[in-house]
Amino acid sequence: MKILIPGMDGYIGWALTLHQLSLGNEVCGLDNFSRRKNVDEMNSHSALPILSIEKRIDYLEKKFPGKFSFYEGDLLDSHFIDDVVKRFSPDAVVHLAEQPSAPFSMIDQEHNIYTQQNNVIGTLNLLHSIQRHVPNTHLVKLGTMGEYGYDPGLEIAEGFFEIEFRGKKATIPYPKLAGSWYHWSKVHDSNNIMFACKLWGLRCTDIMQGIVYGTRTHEITNENEFTRYDFDEAFGTVINRFCAQAVTGYPLTVYGLGGQTRGFLALVDSIQCISILLENPPHDGEYRVVNQFDQQYGVRDLAEKVQKVGKTLGLDVTIQTKENPRKEMEKHFYQADHEKLKKLGFENTRSVEEEIKLILEDLLEHKERIESKKDIMFKGIKWNKK
Amino acid sequence: MKILIPGMDGYIGWALTLHQLSLGNEVCGLDNFSRRKNVDEMNSHSALPILSIEKRIDYLEKKFPGKFSFYEGDLLDSHFIDDVVKRFSPDAVVHLAEQPSAPFSMIDQEHNIYTQQNNVIGTLNLLHSIQRHVPNTHLVKLGTMGEYGYDPGLEIAEGFFEIEFRGKKATIPYPKLAGSWYHWSKVHDSNNIMFACKLWGLRCTDIMQGIVYGTRTHEITNENEFTRYDFDEAFGTVINRFCAQAVTGYPLTVYGLGGQTRGFLALVDSIQCISILLENPPHDGEYRVVNQFDQQYGVRDLAEKVQKVGKTLGLDVTIQTKENPRKEMEKHFYQADHEKLKKLGFENTRSVEEEIKLILEDLLEHKERIESKKDIMFKGIKWNKK
Repeated sequence: MKILIPGMDGYIGWALTLHQLSLGNEVCGLDNFSRRKNVDEMNSHSALPILSIEKRIDYLEKKFPGKFSFYEGDLLDSHFIDDVVKRFSPDAVVHLAEQPSAPFSMIDQEHNIYTQQNNVIGTLNLLHSIQRHVPNTHLVKLGTMGEYGYDPGLEIAEGFFEIEFRGKKATIPYPKLAGSWYHWSKVHDSNNIMFACKLWGLRCTDIMQGIVYGTRTHEITNENEFTRYDFDEAFGTVINRFCAQAVTGYPLTVYGLGGQTRGFLALVDSIQCISILLENPPHDGEYRVVNQFDQQYGVRDLAEKVQKVGKTLGLDVTIQTKENPRKEMEKHFYQADHEKLKKLGFENTRSVEEEIKLILEDLLEHKERIESKKDIMFKGIKWNKK
Repeated sequence: MKILIPGMDGYIGWALTLHQLSLGNEVCGLDNFSRRKNVDEMNSHSALPILSIEKRIDYLEKKFPGKFSFYEGDLLDSHFIDDVVKRFSPDAVVHLAEQPSAPFSMIDQEHNIYTQQNNVIGTLNLLHSIQRHVPNTHLVKLGTMGEYGYDPGLEIAEGFFEIEFRGKKATIPYPKLAGSWYHWSKVHDSNNIMFACKLWGLRCTDIMQGIVYGTRTHEITNENEFTRYDFDEAFGTVINRFCAQAVTGYPLTVYGLGGQTRGFLALVDSIQCISILLENPPHDGEYRVVNQFDQQYGVRDLAEKVQKVGKTLGLDVTIQTKENPRKEMEKHFYQADHEKLKKLGFENTRSVEEEIKLILEDLLEHKERIESKKDIMFKGIKWNKK
């Protein structure tokens, strides 16, 4: 299979590229290195050292000769993406080239506009290129469980659900009630993609992904293969951030009551799920939505898990409650379907405790990289600042 | 009241400006003249002659001394809009500065990107400026009944509806299933505005407006006061297009079966409704959705109404079926709520037949302007062209 991966240089992009190449597939990677730049802007860096892009390209070209190519460029440049799609003619596109941080989008007007423009217009350019050159290709798009939000107080369906209203029944999209400008950009994308499937007969999988954590996949076996691991407030996801705090003796920062419940997924399982979806594409014209996570947890429970696993490694981990800078409910009903991937064969690789142990072990090897950035762990980017 | 009207130079913008000034309110108009440029691009012009912007400004400054101001600029220029909002400090903003044509957005990739970028980013910039400088102002935003789409086969609620799912009840946004890139840009706007109300406590009215038609409002009494009247395939709405075809002996072009049912509203009533909403703002933090139309009609029925009214004026009007260039159902269930405006006092000014008669009379005075552009009446912009 020929797979185009815009956003190849990111957390999931790099791990997915390694995995797909090791399966014998051909990968063409794209990136504009915005993740590296945006983490720089947060005054942070990856906790695990990663190769420069030049060295990554060298490494992959040597390890997988003839199977890997890379182009530097931006999805906002419609000619660039059109040219690559035409030349590479992919069987599948895994679109990971979005600004992926909710807090980053909430910093100020400029970061909001940057996020919505990058994500919405970039995805539109990609859709048009697919329609023009490879209308049968399978587009796999990373959305987020956060598109649904946490407000309705209903069980969360997997994309669509049947309802009755004034005596008539219909299957409609499950409502989207996102909680940040970033999450809304993903909703806009989902809507545009759903329409492209209907209009042009494209086939797309829209992944409502839970929060990803972890350092290891089967293909990450040495430092050259590390994928980035962010722990700053914008780009570090919650378990990853807790683990970075744990190894440096910084208290785990729980926002408010910590009852925020979300779906979670280890990196190795994110790669597994995306790969399962690539092997089981939807039919022409189908807009398929999957809820991609393993288990749901409350944030405070996770902090306690990290504390407990940390203790087995001799770490003295404390938990500190911080005033919640986000506008969100700190305790709420949450029950989300996630059956489609299980039916396609997904089983989790490790328990969350096993995964946390691996993370802590990996991070302890590079503790000084986190310690050098200790001051940026909690900055309190406010959701509703005036 | 001090009212800011981005998009003042357009079809509704000009008529609303005249009306609000004649009520004694203060109006600050903004425009980048994209409507004039985009109709030029369609090789068309307004059927009724309208003043240049310089003459419009002169006219209003003389007729309403000290009550009118105007700035040329673009909502994509965040500094421009921020500066105007800060200086004018409006009590209400009626945001009409969007690319308003579905067919225009469907021409090609460039027109899609232009539409979504202009509408989504322009609205975001406006929201940020309101939040920063006048968080208590009332934002009135023009959306469209087309955001709901015509697919679900349910009655259409007015913004939100209560549903039950697996034993739990919740009030959720009525699903949006738009049918063009333009309509989706309006959905993205609605979602962003709903979030801004929740996040910042803004108060906004999102108008799901039906299709507007007509030449006359109470304040349009001479040629200097004409608002633009478009009849090309992109910017001419269906009744207006039919009337222009009728006065020039061009057959009325009905797409396919003509069973497409939509809500309609005369221009004079659009102005009436917006003014009612301005006088009855929502409370702080409220995101209010109103369905703004008078009656719903099928497209073929409307063609027959224009034919019948035309006959009373001695016009020989024929109806021609054209292959539908749009991807839409040509016959479907349609029943949409529209109670909120009635409860606030809205009553229609004239019947659709009376309005059509006025339109035909006005257009007959300027028949030669339409005849000179007869060749652009039907170009068949395809919804799903490859």
